[in-house]
Amino acid sequence: MLAEIITIGDEILIGQIVDTNSAWMGRELNKIGISVKQITSVSDNADHIVNALNEAQQRADIILITGGLGPTKDDITKLTLSTYFNMPLRRDEETLAHVEELFRKFNRPMIDVNIKQADVPDGCTVIQNKNGTAPCMWFEVNGKIFVSMPGVPFEMMYLMEEEILPRLKNNFDLPYIVHKTILTVGQGESFLAKEIEDIEDSLPSHIKLAYLPKLGQVRLRLSAIGPNEQSLKSEIEIYAQQIIERAQKYVAAEDDVALEKAILDVMKGNQLTLSTAESCTGGYISHLLTQHAGSSAVFAGGAVAYSYDLKESVLGVKHETLTEFGAVSEQTVKEMAVGAITHFKTDYSIAVSGIAGPDGGLPGKPVGTV
Amino acid sequence: MLAEIITIGDEILIGQIVDTNSAWMGRELNKIGISVKQITSVSDNADHIVNALNEAQQRADIILITGGLGPTKDDITKLTLSTYFNMPLRRDEETLAHVEELFRKFNRPMIDVNIKQADVPDGCTVIQNKNGTAPCMWFEVNGKIFVSMPGVPFEMMYLMEEEILPRLKNNFDLPYIVHKTILTVGQGESFLAKEIEDIEDSLPSHIKLAYLPKLGQVRLRLSAIGPNEQSLKSEIEIYAQQIIERAQKYVAAEDDVALEKAILDVMKGNQLTLSTAESCTGGYISHLLTQHAGSSAVFAGGAVAYSYDLKESVLGVKHETLTEFGAVSEQTVKEMAVGAITHFKTDYSIAVSGIAGPDGGLPGKPVGTV
Repeated sequence: MLAEIITIGDEILIGQIVDTNSAWMGRELNKIGISVKQITSVSDNADHIVNALNEAQQRADIILITGGLGPTKDDITKLTLSTYFNMPLRRDEETLAHVEELFRKFNRPMIDVNIKQADVPDGCTVIQNKNGTAPCMWFEVNGKIFVSMPGVPFEMMYLMEEEILPRLKNNFDLPYIVHKTILTVGQGESFLAKEIEDIEDSLPSHIKLAYLPKLGQVRLRLSAIGPNEQSLKSEIEIYAQQIIERAQKYVAAEDDVALEKAILDVMKGNQLTLSTAESCTGGYISHLLTQHAGSSAVFAGGAVAYSYDLKESVLGVKHETLTEFGAVSEQTVKEMAVGAITHFKTDYSIAVSGIAGPDGGLPGKPVGTV
Repeated sequence: MLAEIITIGDEILIGQIVDTNSAWMGRELNKIGISVKQITSVSDNADHIVNALNEAQQRADIILITGGLGPTKDDITKLTLSTYFNMPLRRDEETLAHVEELFRKFNRPMIDVNIKQADVPDGCTVIQNKNGTAPCMWFEVNGKIFVSMPGVPFEMMYLMEEEILPRLKNNFDLPYIVHKTILTVGQGESFLAKEIEDIEDSLPSHIKLAYLPKLGQVRLRLSAIGPNEQSLKSEIEIYAQQIIERAQKYVAAEDDVALEKAILDVMKGNQLTLSTAESCTGGYISHLLTQHAGSSAVFAGGAVAYSYDLKESVLGVKHETLTEFGAVSEQTVKEMAVGAITHFKTDYSIAVSGIAGPDGGLPGKPVGTV
């Protein structure tokens, strides 16, 4: 079963926002056996939206549309759909009651454009959006399903999880798509590919292998499609284990996890604790660690010490070390690491110091030194 | 002048990676007066790539293609372009020398697939990729420009900045596109729209206004297009000032900056310093602050204190406060804030405590409490 995603909004095309919705939708659709054939981002322009709708329905059975549903003049998705499907707008009383309720709750007066949020094309199924004023609209035309949702991520995610994905599951007899990802560290993709070439060549046609490189890391992703989830899982696991055995020394995790999550998992298994002492990374490493549920079992906390003062008072770096070798030196970063272990009472620590730029470069220590 | 971006790779469609390249490219193209008409993400499938190329060249003059140029079997962009343009592959000696040089530098043996990176469609202009082995390929066919680049962000960015954008500027007599963004806080988009309705209605046709809402914030973006950059700037400034005056009490910045950057700027202007004391946000606020160049003039540093121990030792939260009111309480977060000001010797501090979930919710303090 194929779906396409159409995201509407000039802000995406001029790069003012990054489209994170589509990736999230792609993942969730995959889990229920729907493949995304194409993602198309178009401008807030009626002809352009119509063109994208025409093309998408030639390739896919389900067309998911996000964005362009706000109350302001630049948002034209609803009007365009009304014309496209030849369904004049009607006032939906349930939506109006919901919008009024929202405004009462936030104690704001309603104005005319807010009331218009309750107008919907006559012929679509209206799905209430608990997190906002723009309703979700479900169209079934020419055997295809079109769903229009707001582009605000938490509104879209709620609607997808609670309404759209369950309805799609009910509507179709979907195949299963199973992925298995292996995280490797420290070997280039072409070398990995050569090492596992015979395994890759032996894959049956319903199983694909992809290489996803990132600085210092390569993810190997096996994807299988078929009617029986359990047999796909067993089958993919056989090939995954062959690859893991072959690439053993580079494998950091047998799962699609971030490197820091792999570290947290190993440390948790060994009941070890971790702290951080960051300078140029400014809390980014803490942030990466604490994004993961259950990180508090391993990660006690850390310090972001930008100034000399804080490096001394919070991390116990010696004043002489800073004046003699500078903040960005092996000596300082070692004392930061030891300071974190001592002050934060953890088994391990991660310390980083560097010059992130664009200013602050020194002779012998250019911007980018870490 | 219109461009389209085609990103190639199953990893985008299944949501394994978020396409951040397109937003960056959209911004950079805009700066030189090229508008992005559409962004299309397609799978590693020859027919699908061909279809996207056919459609894109009907709408745009410049087609920028990223991804699918790796040495592994799943990457088929180069072969597809070779067939599409009817240009058989030839070995490019300059590229081969560059690839060999890269492997020498990293002291790695070369294998056959690495050598194949030097094969290019006969008829394209080869642009060397200093940051990787996949060359950039520039095609001029039927009066249209097609550029194929690697999808790895730092390789693509380097090529765009150093090679593609300058060449596009030279090739075309481009109009200017000028944006002006006003960051507002604390007022909903429909109310802002109503307050400035007459200003919006008075805009000439070459100036557009868009509303970009985000939790608690709305960005107002004016965009103007025309042949004279200076007069566009003056003109857009007049309308911007009208809006700023009208929406004065909600305006946080007269520029397209993040809210935390606006805070840093105001504090820098007043020579004030800031520290953070984070629990559930795990360093994210520090990270947001330190992303901005020059943040060290204001931001001294902070603590990520997950455990009770660290809240006491690093931030001086009283043991009794934690046991009586709990870590997620107004009392604790106030002591965290005061502790940060005292221990880190700053004028202001930001303290956050909460339960991020998915576990750890308590009666009266559900997950999501901040």
